[in-house]
Amino acid sequence: MRRLRDMLRGAVQGGHYPGGHLPSEAELMASHRASRATVREALALLRAEGLIERTQGIGTHTAVKPVKTSLPEAHGVIKPARNSLLNQRMRPRELDRSIVPAPATVAGRLGVAAATPCLRLEYLALHDEEPIAVATNYVLFPEAGLLLDTPFVSDWYRLLDDAGVELSDSEFIFDGELADAPLASVLAVREGAPLILMEQLIYDHAGRPFDLAFIHTRGERFRFVSRGHKELS
Amino acid sequence: MRRLRDMLRGAVQGGHYPGGHLPSEAELMASHRASRATVREALALLRAEGLIERTQGIGTHTAVKPVKTSLPEAHGVIKPARNSLLNQRMRPRELDRSIVPAPATVAGRLGVAAATPCLRLEYLALHDEEPIAVATNYVLFPEAGLLLDTPFVSDWYRLLDDAGVELSDSEFIFDGELADAPLASVLAVREGAPLILMEQLIYDHAGRPFDLAFIHTRGERFRFVSRGHKELS
Repeated sequence: MRRLRDMLRGAVQGGHYPGGHLPSEAELMASHRASRATVREALALLRAEGLIERTQGIGTHTAVKPVKTSLPEAHGVIKPARNSLLNQRMRPRELDRSIVPAPATVAGRLGVAAATPCLRLEYLALHDEEPIAVATNYVLFPEAGLLLDTPFVSDWYRLLDDAGVELSDSEFIFDGELADAPLASVLAVREGAPLILMEQLIYDHAGRPFDLAFIHTRGERFRFVSRGHKELS
Repeated sequence: MRRLRDMLRGAVQGGHYPGGHLPSEAELMASHRASRATVREALALLRAEGLIERTQGIGTHTAVKPVKTSLPEAHGVIKPARNSLLNQRMRPRELDRSIVPAPATVAGRLGVAAATPCLRLEYLALHDEEPIAVATNYVLFPEAGLLLDTPFVSDWYRLLDDAGVELSDSEFIFDGELADAPLASVLAVREGAPLILMEQLIYDHAGRPFDLAFIHTRGERFRFVSRGHKELS
């Protein structure tokens, strides 16, 4: 069951099914040597995760066209590839842009006193008019002052660039999370769907963190690819 | 609500609460200027995600001691830090080690014909006797032959090393997923809990992928940290 799910998910996410049409239950049973119950459970789970849709009388098809994004692009530390989501292919819908006192957790991560004024900028990231992530950024001054009135036209790094804010290092911590009702609503997913939460710290050239973000991401649309290379030993 | 959850999660995962004891609902309401309903919803969600436990009459405490793992360590391309999980701190429980025909999805990713023989090695990764990930690896020959009889004592990279298998590149694709019944059982989490799925390809020095793994990870215990650095422009 676990293996069948890995196989089906891999095939769906890898775009192996022509036209996005999955084989019938009978065909999946035969090709994976699995029982009908096992095939149905695996399909039910992929559906709960938002990867496939089943239509009575029509069949099963993939619900997503995942786009791969290299992690260095997501970090904002390299020039994005031409067809990358981070090459002006996203559009933000701003939910909030206001000066607030930094909550204790935020202040602790940014190394400032609690209630230090910061810019809170919250937005929904859209790709092809579909929501793919919702992010809340907390930005310290002086960067906050530069960002305050800069038009937000595409992605976060374009915004920093347009505001004249330079970044040096960018750090993510990854976590899995469940969509609660507000997240499900804004991201157009089922409540309880799996999301990837990325906590991001962005540093200036002096090594001072000036931006903390909580980025709730639809992992099935925004596939992060990380590659490591080992020198010959 | 979304923000409160971000704050509480950040505080729990960051180890901000002395002894792991969370403040009372009343204290959280006051410090976050939130209603009791909002505080309760946020706590219920963190509980569903396995981050906190609530005991009637005793209170709320953190359920996890997350360990940060740098992504290059997870890739197996750098020498792990002394206190890293990847420095001999894990123990495997083998679930399966057998030669099987490569399923179509696996064969496609590894660039071989379907049904090419490969070694399937499935194991539960334990840390402090607690399950943190379950992985299914599919390894092509000749590497499969070297791994077949090598004792598996700690982590995957130690196994490769002990078998005399060298890796060059290592690639992850990240996804969020829900624990189904078998995964929940083996990982000791609630069914429907959020997991991080990492699909890994490992390459030899000639650029040929010889190992594909599906790694189902408890993100709340195994926190992946990725850092990018931008050159001065």
